[in-house]
This record gives sequence, structure tokens and C-alpha cells, in this order.
Amino acid sequence: MTQNKTIKASIIGVTGFTGAELLRVLMPHQNIELKYLVSRQYEAEPLANLFPRLKGTTDLKVTNTDYATVAKESDVVFLCLPHVASQEVVDNFLGKTKVIDMSADFRLDDAAMFEKYYGTAHTLPELLDGAFIYGLPELNRAAIKTANAVANPGCNALLVQMMLLPFAGNIKHADVSLFTGTSGGGRTARDPLDHPMLTNNVRSYLINAHRHTPEIIRTAQINEEQLNFAPTVGPYLRGIFATAFVQANKAPDLSCFNGEPFARVCDKVELSNVVSNNFCDISVQEGTSGTYIIQGAIDNLLRGAAGTALQNMNLMFGLDEATGLTFNSAIYP
Amino acid sequence: MTQNKTIKASIIGVTGFTGAELLRVLMPHQNIELKYLVSRQYEAEPLANLFPRLKGTTDLKVTNTDYATVAKESDVVFLCLPHVASQEVVDNFLGKTKVIDMSADFRLDDAAMFEKYYGTAHTLPELLDGAFIYGLPELNRAAIKTANAVANPGCNALLVQMMLLPFAGNIKHADVSLFTGTSGGGRTARDPLDHPMLTNNVRSYLINAHRHTPEIIRTAQINEEQLNFAPTVGPYLRGIFATAFVQANKAPDLSCFNGEPFARVCDKVELSNVVSNNFCDISVQEGTSGTYIIQGAIDNLLRGAAGTALQNMNLMFGLDEATGLTFNSAIYP
Amino acid sequence: MTQNKTIKASIIGVTGFTGAELLRVLMPHQNIELKYLVSRQYEAEPLANLFPRLKGTTDLKVTNTDYATVAKESDVVFLCLPHVASQEVVDNFLGKTKVIDMSADFRLDDAAMFEKYYGTAHTLPELLDGAFIYGLPELNRAAIKTANAVANPGCNALLVQMMLLPFAGNIKHADVSLFTGTSGGGRTARDPLDHPMLTNNVRSYLINAHRHTPEIIRTAQINEEQLNFAPTVGPYLRGIFATAFVQANKAPDLSCFNGEPFARVCDKVELSNVVSNNFCDISVQEGTSGTYIIQGAIDNLLRGAAGTALQNMNLMFGLDEATGLTFNSAIYP
Amino acid sequence: MTQNKTIKASIIGVTGFTGAELLRVLMPHQNIELKYLVSRQYEAEPLANLFPRLKGTTDLKVTNTDYATVAKESDVVFLCLPHVASQEVVDNFLGKTKVIDMSADFRLDDAAMFEKYYGTAHTLPELLDGAFIYGLPELNRAAIKTANAVANPGCNALLVQMMLLPFAGNIKHADVSLFTGTSGGGRTARDPLDHPMLTNNVRSYLINAHRHTPEIIRTAQINEEQLNFAPTVGPYLRGIFATAFVQANKAPDLSCFNGEPFARVCDKVELSNVVSNNFCDISVQEGTSGTYIIQGAIDNLLRGAAGTALQNMNLMFGLDEATGLTFNSAIYP
Repeated sequence: MTQNKTIKASIIGVTGFTGAELLRVLMPHQNIELKYLVSRQYEAEPLANLFPRLKGTTDLKVTNTDYATVAKESDVVFLCLPHVASQEVVDNFLGKTKVIDMSADFRLDDAAMFEKYYGTAHTLPELLDGAFIYGLPELNRAAIKTANAVANPGCNALLVQMMLLPFAGNIKHADVSLFTGTSGGGRTARDPLDHPMLTNNVRSYLINAHRHTPEIIRTAQINEEQLNFAPTVGPYLRGIFATAFVQANKAPDLSCFNGEPFARVCDKVELSNVVSNNFCDISVQEGTSGTYIIQGAIDNLLRGAAGTALQNMNLMFGLDEATGLTFNSAIYP
Repeated sequence: MTQNKTIKASIIGVTGFTGAELLRVLMPHQNIELKYLVSRQYEAEPLANLFPRLKGTTDLKVTNTDYATVAKESDVVFLCLPHVASQEVVDNFLGKTKVIDMSADFRLDDAAMFEKYYGTAHTLPELLDGAFIYGLPELNRAAIKTANAVANPGCNALLVQMMLLPFAGNIKHADVSLFTGTSGGGRTARDPLDHPMLTNNVRSYLINAHRHTPEIIRTAQINEEQLNFAPTVGPYLRGIFATAFVQANKAPDLSCFNGEPFARVCDKVELSNVVSNNFCDISVQEGTSGTYIIQGAIDNLLRGAAGTALQNMNLMFGLDEATGLTFNSAIYP
Repeated sequence: MTQNKTIKASIIGVTGFTGAELLRVLMPHQNIELKYLVSRQYEAEPLANLFPRLKGTTDLKVTNTDYATVAKESDVVFLCLPHVASQEVVDNFLGKTKVIDMSADFRLDDAAMFEKYYGTAHTLPELLDGAFIYGLPELNRAAIKTANAVANPGCNALLVQMMLLPFAGNIKHADVSLFTGTSGGGRTARDPLDHPMLTNNVRSYLINAHRHTPEIIRTAQINEEQLNFAPTVGPYLRGIFATAFVQANKAPDLSCFNGEPFARVCDKVELSNVVSNNFCDISVQEGTSGTYIIQGAIDNLLRGAAGTALQNMNLMFGLDEATGLTFNSAIYP
Repeated sequence: MTQNKTIKASIIGVTGFTGAELLRVLMPHQNIELKYLVSRQYEAEPLANLFPRLKGTTDLKVTNTDYATVAKESDVVFLCLPHVASQEVVDNFLGKTKVIDMSADFRLDDAAMFEKYYGTAHTLPELLDGAFIYGLPELNRAAIKTANAVANPGCNALLVQMMLLPFAGNIKHADVSLFTGTSGGGRTARDPLDHPMLTNNVRSYLINAHRHTPEIIRTAQINEEQLNFAPTVGPYLRGIFATAFVQANKAPDLSCFNGEPFARVCDKVELSNVVSNNFCDISVQEGTSGTYIIQGAIDNLLRGAAGTALQNMNLMFGLDEATGLTFNSAIYP
């Protein structure tokens, strides 16, 4: 496939934060034609009505197109739905077009683990056995290139996995403290994400019970007993900043990031260096008593969702992985 | 009545921001015994369960006490309910105990104006004719002292009225731009107050249609045609900062604030000088072409709600107006 | 000139916020080769050392190249210096290469007005008589196209001028309340811009004495007596949101924005719709007593500085005005 | 000593954040007469000129009074000076009046440790051997009661010590991730604390090299090799929120907090529960592989500085430890 081929891409569930961020990277992408932007709520609504910031930049419409048509007329479909909802619609697309699923429904390979962390039985456990490639390019690049379906990682999970990759399975125990902005909570207004309740506030949630845990431990080749994971929400909008204290059998090998287009090894990680770009920044420092202190940061909506999804799409279609993702350095200040 | 008399005070609707701020000023008040904290949602819930910040400081409980008991055993009842809801319960208290209503239901003296701005007919229009004194101490101090029922001003309305008081009815036209924090939107989570939608954002709402308009024009002795009022919500939690451009028949006379315990005439108004204290800061500057530029700031929950309510209560019970309100200078920084 | 010609562009003073934002738009621009990034502080410092967010994206260096070389080898030079500093260096570039000056030094046409608002005599008053075209494309597009030197507007000035353009000189009086984020204060740390002093704070500064006033009144065709201008800094980073109450001899004519690539007439202006894109959003509402209420918003660093500078450069080199400026819709959320 | 005795208290260095917060708790304190507020910068400046928020609440002046007079006429002197500066002036007060030092100069008992972490030799090492009692009431209450000089703990140090107290010396290793607001950086404006550089940003500083480390390890009865300490600054104003992952020889015993007036054991720690009050909130959760996860939060300026100083002063003068510190529950929201 050449760089100038047009890929017809559609998005199911375009009105959430992930859908909106996908629009931000797909709209200017040189190889993509946005075919259908689907939402069950709208018949034929100008996209710019839903996102006033897009006014004057696009004639795209959000439609309630039937899934068969979407599957038939799209080269790739991004499913931007909550978990469980993806299970309900995935049959319409799988095997009919390429699929990139942004939900948690097909990230795991163990239905019991899904049920444990998501609180509901998986309805399509047969699809957990290889139907989807786990879409962390730094881990599964070769498999993604030939995949028909990719499960995009969770935002927190992606960052922590990247931070633990240099240990290559040699971790004895990891204590992870992670700080995320409020956009990680998604688009639906609700009490704990109310502005007055979060401004000037910091609080942890789901310590050692966060849904991204099984993704992390699988990639890090550890079990649940080898991880403490304290996710914490802070009073800002975008970005995840994490610190991992790692006991390991051998030193981390940063060469795993050599040549990676979207991983940077830094002396010092700072959140503002990655907000609005697609980089994952990582620093490593020797701690006390043989511990390693790893810090990392990403933009949760970009590298943590839409940006990695686009890396995956680029790979699936034989494009340069960075296509459409080098446009903007992080906003400064 | 002497300073050491104990006033039995109850709050109807204690779980919202206004109720919570009332608790903050009433709990340490030397003359007050909190009798009933009422919420229809709770049977006998420790207050500290609802407000974890109060843990270890109080044994108070929130109860679903019937209104007849509350009225009978309280010297004063604060109604912290939304508009319309106050109309529905006020009969239980009026004439039986002193009432301070924090809602908009009894602030106006014109049922048509209520219906115009609140979008629903007033169900007790007969109470708009003097049953409640409008609780702006700087305007109605004498009447408040002998009142049995007081309608506490709206937060934005209070600030703008204070800014226009020095004109004493000589205003030809006023253009008011007002910036309020997100706590002004109240406790109920909903889309436009979601943290991700407000962080880094600024937007106006209800320009020339804000419900506090009729309070402002009545006190300023102007009609709707003489006011432009652009309320704007900004990305912070507490406080209102406003700028008024006023054309007037004569210069503002700041002597109206002489001796006022909670109004300060300043060279320069700064929001952080009033957040968490009960002051209303005002500055006056001559503008161009005979315009006057007035700026003002208050804490919307304290001076804009609970603090003024306590001024009113103090006055109604013959206490020094500042009792319980001088405790804390504004937090700095 | 064709779209594929390479323009050699240099920046004098690249380390401030304006310089950094220029980098953000110039680096990916298809027609631009960044030739010299000059700072007197650095001999040959990798740009990515100064801006860690750029690590891995560029080999550019910041150098202390002599101005003669810069002028000789550049097709256009952006001067990102404070006012007065531009006066000191401008002779090195003027007439030798195209110049876009981001400072206030050549925006005015009246040396007395400069001295009044900037507190120091202009040292090159002869250059105020046409040597520079005032770089507001919506006002001076034709002249900019043939200009050798352009003075880029002040950020607040640009927004207010845009808001008043529809009145086409028919303004009797305008009261303007403007909220700006803290990045408007520039890169140099100092007390009033300290984070602890601005978080949760709002305050006005230089009411009717702001340096952008003479730009505004010239374009609006009014005198100082016809404007009240209350600039106010709010607790956020990027963006300007303003409200103007305008008395005019005739209704505003929004057709002045027809076909404009970076002006949008909206029902409702919201800051987050323009942060990180190049749009100026404008709304018009009829107020009371014949007043018009105009609201507007821009990103102060982009449309308010680097974005308009790039519009100007595009025009000066015969490119499509929007080249390099349509890349990213505003970040959302 | 009875509760109604007046204590003459003076503050040296009143213009910083710590001095200002001390004013906030000392001004309304029933037993305290503020005698001298000293700053070398001012001859006789009304306090309200320096802190406009205090306008109308006090006639206090900031003076440049000689230290001999201050010592002679004060019952207690609070030194609110940077480290090293306290060493330079302490002889004027020690032995002449009671001293509460807010700096780091007399917190340690080991001059070498001071030099290692503060980068300069201690000039009064003889005072590190018992002249000052370390002012953590939960640890040294009895000694504080009879002390003539108290060294007030560092803000981060205080929180981490409190979190580790339940282990009573049984810690094998602790990994601590701590988030602090920007007011922890103090009053002096400088680049890394500039608002534009911190808004929307998160970054660590001085990992395993923070100056509060020696305080923490001494109280926790561990050595430097047993602690990893990653302090991180977040985009908010007040408060410290920390997570400790602790490996210990036995389970933490929370009974150490029984009866403590300003320590609360909570199911869940949330920063907003402690901002503007004097509580230290602590939660304990069992982690994996025998680790304990401790979270804690304080207001860095109140419990982390002025509030604990007042606890110490109350103890030194035989007052109830909580006097003047129960006034305000945390602001909500």
C-alpha cells in the first residue's frame, strides 16, 4: 500500500472525549477520508454543532447510519464505546472491516479477569483468544501490522506498561503512584467529576482495584500480588504522570525504546512536555536498596487513546507509524 | 436580648453548598445551638458522614424531622432549598418561628417579575407584599432587625447591588460584566459544570436574562432597560468579581459604606482578598466621558449567601451584626 | 510565487512565549525553512534543551548569530523582543529582509502616543510614518501583501479591534471588560504572576491605561474618551475573553467577516473553542437602551501573536493566508 | 497558667506565606497579644497595607524593631525566616524568651546531615544537641510542654512522619510519592513557580534528595537507604497529599493516634477535607505481598506550618493544645 492511498475510516460513538480526540488526529491525516461518524443520538447533525470549536473547518455530519453500511463502506472502524457496549456491536464489524476498539472489551485474554475487574461476565469470551491484537505498538508492532482487529490499551495501563517495559519481565515488585487529570473520567457529568468537587482537590480511587490492572500485569509479566497501584485524580484537565518504585532481578534496559517514534527517555519527566503531543516520556533513576524509580507521563487522550489508535491504524495499513502524529509539539506554555 | 442567649437554629436542606457554608459559620457561633439539620434524604445520618471534612469536630446528625417539630423547637429556621421548593414548605415555618430564606422565592415584590425570570408562576404571591424583608443589611438594616422573615439576596445580585448603592438612585445606565467561580452553580453535577468542561474555559450565560436582574434593578432604582448584565463563569471555585461601567446623574457617594462592618472601599479590588471572608470590596474609578468604573468582589458562598444570612440573623436577634463573622481573614495565599 | 517555494525564516528572541509559539506554527509549515533561531544568551544550544517538549522532533539550534548574517541569509525575520529592544535592533533588518515585529515598537503611528503609554520616548519616530504596516489582516490585508515590514498587533488589542470592526467607525462609546490568562504576562517570573498569587484569583490592571489602548482606538476610529477598557487577569493559562458594551450610531455589520478565514461569528462565544486554534470568535447581541453587547475570544499566543504573524507572513509571500494554520482544531476538552 | 493569661507573641519575618498564615491563626487567638511583627524591610507599615485582605480588621503595624526589644517584651517569638537566616538571629532570642523556629535550622540533631542536605555548614552546631525540641506534638508532646525552644517540622516531613508513626520503628522500607501545591514553594517569585509554568503541569523535584528527608528518617527510625521519597508539585495552591508503600516487620498500630486532636484516621483521604483546617488525615490499606499503603493529607501552610506552630505554642504555655485551631472546618467546596 502506498502513502497516498485513501483509507475510509469511520467512528462509532464520536461524541465522547476519545471520539473527539480521534477526530482531532484523523481529520488532518493525509491518508484518511472520514466516512461515517456514527452516534445513535443523531440523525444527520453537523459535527460543528456538536463541537463548536470545529465550526468553519468541516462539513462532516454525525449520522445514525446502520452498522452494516458502515462496515461495508469503511476500511477501518474505530469503536469509541464504553465497555460492554463494544461487545454488543462488534459482530457487525469483525471480519467485515478492520476494527480498532477503544473500549476495554477486548484488551484481556482472560474472561475471568474481565469479570473480576469489570464486574460483569464477558459475553463473547471466544473473542478473547486472539481475535484482537493488544494495540501497544512498542510491544506488539509486528502483530499489529497484520491484524484485522486491535484492542487499544487503557490510558493508565499504557503509561504504566511503558514504564515497566525496560524490565523485560524481571520485576519482583512494583509500587505505582499515578496522577491523572479529570478528562480521564470521561464526558459524562457526575458528582465526583464536578468542577467544584475537583478544583483544589486530590484523591485516590480504586487502589489495587483499578480496571487497568490486568493489562499492566500481563505485559509486565507479574501477578496481582506483585503490584501496588494507586491511581489518583488531580485538579487539572489532561495528562497522566506516574512514579513507579520497582524491585527487579536486573537493571532496566532502556534499549527497548531505541528507535521508538513516540517514546522518549528523559532526565526528568514533566507533564507539560507531553500534553497535546503523542510522546510517552520516561525517566529512570536508581533508588535506595536496589529499587529503581521510574517516572513517566503521557497525554491521556492522545498517546493514551487516540494517538496510539492512530499508530495502530497506520501500522495496520502499512503507513509510516508516525503519519499524522508529528503535527504539533506540545503547547507551550 | 443579651449576647449570651442561646439561639436554637435549624437548617432545612443542609446538603447543598449554601447549607454547608451556613454550617461553617453557625457551628462556631457563640450564641447558636444547632437544633435540627434537616434533609428529606436522611433519617439520622451523622453530619460528618456527609461532610468528611467535619469528622471529629461534631456529633451533629442530619435528620428527616417533621417541619412542625422543627418550627416549634427552633428560634430561627434557615431554608436552604431551591426556588419553588421554598414556596412549598414555607407555610410550616412562617409565623411560627423566624425564617431566613436562602432561595429566590421571596426576594421579589412582584409576582409577574418572578414568573418572567423564573419561568413559573409564584404560588404564594400574597407573601411578596411585605411578609419577607429583603436581607441586604446595608439597605434594610432597620427593617431586618424587627423582621420575622428575611429573604436572603442572590449572590450575584448582592455584589452588584453593593456596587451600585453609592449612586443612590441616580443611575442612567449600567453595563455590568461579572465573573463568577463554579461553586455558584451549586452542588448538583451536570454537564456544563463538569470539571473538564470548565477548566481552562470562560463563558457567559443568560446575558440580560439572569434571575438576579430584578433584585439588582429594584435596589438600584432603575428599570431593565437601564442595565446590561453579562454574567460569566470562569475556571475557579469561589468568588465573584465584577466590573460596572455606570453613567449617572451625579457622582457616587461612598459615604453609604461608612461604618459598614462588611463593606470595604479599596483602591484596587482583588478576588483573593475576599475569598473565605465576609467582606464586599468595592473600588471606584472615574472612567471616560463621565462614566464611573466600579469594581467589586465577594465570596459567593460566604458574603454572597451564608455570611449575609448570619448578618441578618444577628440583626434579627439583637446581636452585634458581625458576631461569628470576624473569625477568619481570607486565606492567603 | 508558488506554494512550494521555501522561505528562509529566522527568529530573534526565541526563548519567550511568543517565540516558542512561533516555533510551534513555523516548524511544521510546508514552505518554511527555519534558518536562524537567535538568542543572545546561547552560542549553539540545541533547541530541544531549551524546550524539552521538542526533544526528538528537531535538530535545530539556538545561536548567537550576528544580525548582519541573519538579515542576509533570511527571507523574513520575526523580532520577538520586548518593546524598546526592537527599536534597538530593527536597523539591522529593515530594508535588508522582510520583517515581522512582534513588539509594540512599530504598531503606532504617533510617537507622542507611544511615549504616553509606554513611558519612554520613541527613538525612531521616523519609522512610525508608514515603514511598518499594522498587521491586522482583516483590516490591512492588501497593504500587508506588499509590505516589507509588518508590526504585529498586541494580543488584547487584536481581540478588541476585531470585536469593534463591525461598527466601521460608527461607535459613540465602548465599555470593554476583558479577561486574559496568565500567559499574557510573558515568560519572566515575577511576583504578580507567581502561581500562588494567581491561582483562585482575579484582578484588573491598568484600567484605561493599558498599552494596547492606542491600537484599539485607532482602528475603531474613536478617541480615548470614547473607550473604557478594564483588562483583568484570571486564573488560567491561555486565552482572552472579552465583553464590549457598545453605543453606536448604527447597527454592527457582520458582513465585514464574510470570507475571513480566521474570524467566526457565533451565537455564543466560549473560550475553550479557540484555545490552541487560530480563530477569533465573535458574538453580537442587542443589549438595552440601544447598546450592543459584543463578546469575543482568542488564544492570546496563537491568534493573539504567532498565528496572526504567520497570517501576515503568508500574505507577504503570496501564500494562502491559512497555510500552516489549519492543522489543529482546538484541543477538547 | 490559666486560659485567660495573655501571651505576648512576636513574629520575625512576617511577610512570607508562613508568617501570613501564622497571623491568620494568631490574630483571633483568645490568649495572644501580637506584640511585634518584624520585617527588616519596613519601618512602621500598617499590616493591612502589606496584606490588603486584612484591611479593616487590624491596626497592627510591621516594624523594624531591634531584636533586643522584641526579645525583652515578648513571651514567645516565632522565627519565620529561611534556613541559615535563623542561625544568624537566633542568639538574640534564645534564653531570653521562648522561641518557635519555623526554619529548618534547628530541626536536625546532626550538623553533618544538615550540611549534606542544605549545602552549607551549620554555624551553630552546638545548638543541635537539645537546645531545640523537635515540634511534632504527636511525637514529643511532653518535651514540648517544657521546652524553651521548638523547631517546627518541615511541611512535607510532618505529613510523612505522621504517616509512618503507626509503624513505630518497624519499617523495613518505604516508597513515598508526595504531591504538594505551589504554595509550598514560598513567597518569592521565580521561574519554576511561575503560574504559566505550573498550570496544567506536574513534575517531581529532588527525588531522594529533598531537605525534609533527614527529619523523616529520624522519626521513622530508618536510614536513608530505607526510604525512596519522590516529592512532586501539582497544579494547585494548598495542600499535600502523599502515598506511602511500606514494607514492615509488623502491622501499623493506629492506636498511636488515639486522642490526638489533629490526626484523623479515615477510610479514604481527600485533600479538600484538610485544606484550611489543622487536621492530618491518614488512611491505611493492606497492599500486595505484605506491603501497607498509607495515604495522608494536610494543609501545608496550616498543619504543615502555622497550625503545628500554634499547637506547640499552646503546649509551651500550658494551654489546651487545640486553642485557636478549631475555628474553621475546611472550606467546602
